[in-house]
Formats: sequence, C-alpha cells, structure tokens
Amino acid sequence: MPFDPHSLVYDAKGLIPAIAQDHATGEVLMLAWMNAEAVARTLASGRVTYWSRSRAAFWEKGATSGHRQRLVEMRLDCDRDCLLLLVEQLGPACHTGRRSCFFTAIRDGAEAEISTPEG
Amino acid sequence: MPFDPHSLVYDAKGLIPAIAQDHATGEVLMLAWMNAEAVARTLASGRVTYWSRSRAAFWEKGATSGHRQRLVEMRLDCDRDCLLLLVEQLGPACHTGRRSCFFTAIRDGAEAEISTPEG
Repeated sequence: MPFDPHSLVYDAKGLIPAIAQDHATGEVLMLAWMNAEAVARTLASGRVTYWSRSRAAFWEKGATSGHRQRLVEMRLDCDRDCLLLLVEQLGPACHTGRRSCFFTAIRDGAEAEISTPEG
Repeated sequence: MPFDPHSLVYDAKGLIPAIAQDHATGEVLMLAWMNAEAVARTLASGRVTYWSRSRAAFWEKGATSGHRQRLVEMRLDCDRDCLLLLVEQLGPACHTGRRSCFFTAIRDGAEAEISTPEG
C-alpha cells in the first residue's frame, strides 16, 4: 500500500525520533526528530530533513555546513513510532566535527571519548 | 570522571531514548526508553533494562521472553539526550519474532516487509 507519513505515530508535539545510520558501514551517526512534513520532504527530495526542536524550524541536514545526508532507505519500526534512516553521510554527522554524535562511551564507570574530530 | 546517570538530559517525563544495536553485526534492533534508574540498573547488571511507557514499569528486556540483551557498551551522544547501546541480543529483539523492529521499508512509495519472524 502507498506510504502515508501521517500513518506514523507521533508524540504529543507531533514528532517522531529518527535514527541515522551509515548505509555502508552500519555506524549509528545521530538521532534527531521529524514531523510528518519533514518525513514527506525527506522522501520526496532524498535529502534528509529533520525538525529542529531548538530552532522550531525545518533542518535540512548539511544545508549550511555541507555535511549532507542522502537518504538511501527509510524504515519504520513495529510500533510505527520510530524511523531508521539508512544514509550516505557527507563529512561528519556531528556538529563537533566527529563522524558520529555517539563519541562518548561509559567504560569502567567513567566517560571515555572514543573518537576525535575529523581533520 | 565517574559517570552519573543523572547527568544525562531527560525529557519532560524523565525519559531518554535508547537505541539498541547488535554489537557484532551493527544491525539496529530497536529503540526504547530509559529513566535514570533504568540507566543505572543496566550499567550495574549488564542486563538491558528499559522503562515501559505503556506499562509504566521497569522492563528488563527478555525477562519473560528469554530474549535478553546483554550490554556490551553504553554510549551517549553530544547533547547527552540519547543513548546508544551495543548489545548481545539473544533471539529476536522484536515482539513479532523478527530480529529487528525495523522490518518495514519504504520502497517506491510503498511499505515493504523486509524480514520475517525467526523460526
């Protein structure tokens, strides 16, 4: 059946979490949020577009930084309340310059930085 | 520095999203939610424990189904408002019997089931 972005389950603010994963390496890059219009724009354009909660505006990933995400495939979970985006990531996904936002690990009860900003 | 679960950024309901990823294959298995106590229990026991929003109770993954998740490593993102759990998953992660909850893809504008329940 045709996919309708409004058939997803959004929270009280009309948002759904979206996990971005590198389609080639499997690395989890980041998690951000989408509303129904962001889902529709992402599917229509192939350019991953989130909803920025802090700026209350659409956020086409990389539109200013150049660190774009090209959508390879969108998937949804069994409850229809979370998205998994397989993406082709240009440059770092994280605003700190690291490939992934998940660069802090808990090891032996302490925080450990496991990656550094890309050159 | 020692890691304090209360140093994470929780939403208005005291919850943080946690992505579970198979540590060996990189497959993203599911997303669920934790509160600070669930984070602490998971780190202390090595058994991934979520907060069930529907049951409003702690949910030690697999305690009844046997489909447990053993924590290999917990990571947090740059905003401290999302967790990535590298896990060893026993059996399927999804309540439908599939390995991953993300078994529906959007292809050519329609929903496509891309995996089946495990035998």
